[in-house]
Amino acid sequence: MAPDIYDVDTTSVPRGDGVRDVELTDRWHTPLGTPNGGYILATMLRGLRDEMGADDPMVAAVTYVSPPVAGPAELRTATVRMGRRVQTGSASLWQGERQVATMTASFGPRGDGPSSELGAPPALPAPDRCADPLDHGMPADGLFGRVDYRLASMPGWAAGAPSGDPTIDLWQRLQGGREIDFPALALLCDSFAPPVLELGEGHQQSMTVQLTVHLHRLPRPGWIATRLSTRHVVNGFHEEDCELWDEDGHLVAQSRQLGILL
Amino acid sequence: MAPDIYDVDTTSVPRGDGVRDVELTDRWHTPLGTPNGGYILATMLRGLRDEMGADDPMVAAVTYVSPPVAGPAELRTATVRMGRRVQTGSASLWQGERQVATMTASFGPRGDGPSSELGAPPALPAPDRCADPLDHGMPADGLFGRVDYRLASMPGWAAGAPSGDPTIDLWQRLQGGREIDFPALALLCDSFAPPVLELGEGHQQSMTVQLTVHLHRLPRPGWIATRLSTRHVVNGFHEEDCELWDEDGHLVAQSRQLGILL
Repeated sequence: MAPDIYDVDTTSVPRGDGVRDVELTDRWHTPLGTPNGGYILATMLRGLRDEMGADDPMVAAVTYVSPPVAGPAELRTATVRMGRRVQTGSASLWQGERQVATMTASFGPRGDGPSSELGAPPALPAPDRCADPLDHGMPADGLFGRVDYRLASMPGWAAGAPSGDPTIDLWQRLQGGREIDFPALALLCDSFAPPVLELGEGHQQSMTVQLTVHLHRLPRPGWIATRLSTRHVVNGFHEEDCELWDEDGHLVAQSRQLGILL
Repeated sequence: MAPDIYDVDTTSVPRGDGVRDVELTDRWHTPLGTPNGGYILATMLRGLRDEMGADDPMVAAVTYVSPPVAGPAELRTATVRMGRRVQTGSASLWQGERQVATMTASFGPRGDGPSSELGAPPALPAPDRCADPLDHGMPADGLFGRVDYRLASMPGWAAGAPSGDPTIDLWQRLQGGREIDFPALALLCDSFAPPVLELGEGHQQSMTVQLTVHLHRLPRPGWIATRLSTRHVVNGFHEEDCELWDEDGHLVAQSRQLGILL
């Protein structure tokens, strides 16, 4: 049986005193040649939950402070408070003397309180009627080999013709349809190219400063309809919103990040 | 001259080793009888920036772990990284042996990079043509005496008739028009009643678990047009988005929080 790369690559091993050993692989690299921020977040979130023995994650806020590299890393965790409905902890990821990221996350049992859905999922053609970007020149190594994407049409920037509209809807799943758990939802909030690229000149590269993810519920197995948008760019910084919907039309996660244009 | 209550109440005094003394007052109490979360955030943000000697805040993510009370508190700060474009630090607020909140924030010099505005400010009548909720039964003590509000119409829930639409637009400013700095923008992101109250039965009380604020630019002096909305309620948790616009029509801040229905 093929190894479950998502499982292997997000695993961390407890060393005692809240510290866990992590091995960041090169299998989730972005085109910039460093591990994807969503992969880092998923690994941190999974490690913190395991260390705390907490319930399912409901919100995670991560700040990326220096670029990670493939190789060993150390996850330093701390429990902030174990409440009845909400459990909170923090984790920071280190490589040698360099801090890569810091995260605070809250966990809890899912209640049976009220639900109301005022939003709507993206209107996308069925995945098998969409384009696979691997057939359109996207390289299959790194991240793009680990997540399957299906797009109604290829983004303008990919053809050198940015559309001017910094939004994109697409389908995503872990490669081959691997089951999506909460850390994987966090990963999928930051796994595709930023829509701000559609603004062209001066917007060709963005780096996430801070990302907050709300994890609402597990998806039913299948593809995740993803809505990415940027509405505000201010002095070289931009926000980016993401919504993830399952094939039943339920919102499963949403996120917002602050990015910096490079 | 009257004391500048906003300035006095958000001040903290350095004690050495990154610790600062805070005096939380009862002047920013919500109707629940505890200090408003936005006031807590503004105090933490100001204290952390002062301690770090950092530039202006650009993003802050706070998790509220136990209810604060009026009285002395201790702000424990740490510098995470002083980068060239981004400086990051963390702060936690303690009252005795009890942790109240934990925050990570990033600061930086505002660059001269590109700006694009794809959103639009709320369409509100001029402030002097709006209703002052103090004239409609809202008590002037605590928070509602410290922030001036002007509403096109009173919310449905306030009259016992929730509208079913969890959105509200309103004007805000610090009482009397006091200048709005970045910590005050953070405060104004979480200073009015949650729009989820408009969903009625089962949605009458909400508490913020986590709040992330993006601080884009200082407003021009005047009123702040505020757009509050909730689109997703899932099993007793809800998101809430806030946008703050100045009278020139510039987005000055935006936030998202995860709240828990009580």
